[in-house]
Amino acid sequence: MDKSILEKIKFNSEGLVPVITQSYYTGKVLMQAYANKEAIKKTIETGYATYYSRSRKSLWVKGETSGNKQKVVKIKVDCDEDSILYLVKDYGVACHTGEESCFYRDINLRKAEKPDAYEIFHALYEKLLQRKIEKPEGSYVAKLFEKGSDKIIQKVGEEAVETVIALKNKDKNEIIYEVSDLIFHLIVALIDADIKLEDIQEELLKRYK
Amino acid sequence: MDKSILEKIKFNSEGLVPVITQSYYTGKVLMQAYANKEAIKKTIETGYATYYSRSRKSLWVKGETSGNKQKVVKIKVDCDEDSILYLVKDYGVACHTGEESCFYRDINLRKAEKPDAYEIFHALYEKLLQRKIEKPEGSYVAKLFEKGSDKIIQKVGEEAVETVIALKNKDKNEIIYEVSDLIFHLIVALIDADIKLEDIQEELLKRYK
Repeated sequence: MDKSILEKIKFNSEGLVPVITQSYYTGKVLMQAYANKEAIKKTIETGYATYYSRSRKSLWVKGETSGNKQKVVKIKVDCDEDSILYLVKDYGVACHTGEESCFYRDINLRKAEKPDAYEIFHALYEKLLQRKIEKPEGSYVAKLFEKGSDKIIQKVGEEAVETVIALKNKDKNEIIYEVSDLIFHLIVALIDADIKLEDIQEELLKRYK
Repeated sequence: MDKSILEKIKFNSEGLVPVITQSYYTGKVLMQAYANKEAIKKTIETGYATYYSRSRKSLWVKGETSGNKQKVVKIKVDCDEDSILYLVKDYGVACHTGEESCFYRDINLRKAEKPDAYEIFHALYEKLLQRKIEKPEGSYVAKLFEKGSDKIIQKVGEEAVETVIALKNKDKNEIIYEVSDLIFHLIVALIDADIKLEDIQEELLKRYK
């Protein structure tokens, strides 16, 4: 990239801009930190998220100590060029507490029990994968995985037929219910086939023209 | 909420914290601004995103002039309580340029041509809806909408059967291709039935335990 563009960014009186770090595949906002011009330059050159630590007063390559480096897919700039967005992948966890995101609590400082709506597909994938591994007693999904691929594929077919019937009935609630059921079982099938949701997202991106 | 929690937030020397504003359903980061204690209090009380304008030196209810108010679904706090996240819905556009998000350009100040991976399902929904409305010549999707609901439902059934066959073949590339095809046509069917992706997300959230 043309580094002269860095000249356009409006750094504050301390020479910093706020940086928002977001997961490229799930959309999760992972952290908010600061960067100076050097940090952005280094991020571009190395492909890994680099910040400026205000407490240590030095450049800070995220994950250099913890191993949780953030591979930068894209950098975005806001309309008045005084805020930056890093879109990252393969980041492990971003928070020093061990949480994936630093924003793991609501305004009442309570940990969220449910994912936010935008991340439900990925959250469900992770949850169902956990069911497969941990096999909790009485879990429908754990039982489905135990019955094996043929049973899972059969369920995909069943839910698809139920979706077709719901669509023919033109009943909105029924359609919402059945499409959700189908997506739920498609996720089970993807896990069973060892395919990531990211692969589907990349394939759909190709079809976006 | 317990307002004493506001006492825990670490405002900077100007009495401000950075606020990240994110779409609750799509995950899109819409803008980054600042809030003082009053702004956060007002956001909690009214349910609409309120900021502190550093240029006007006053509280700023986003959209009070433009009409693009941001309904706040959740407020989150980061691990060291010096950064805030507003999750919003029904926000129209967030940027004064008319763009949905202030972060509509990459670091080279070029407008993005493709959505980011995390937002592909919603972006595809919007794109296919646009095809339905604008009916561009030669568009496969526009033609599909013209042929009507039965043809669309038939395609969902077809793609589901192809997905079942791909799953049985245990061919990863084939599965990725066919599942993507199925999701693509499920989105067409949802548009045809006048159902939003948000409805599916809410239904899946109910199943997340």
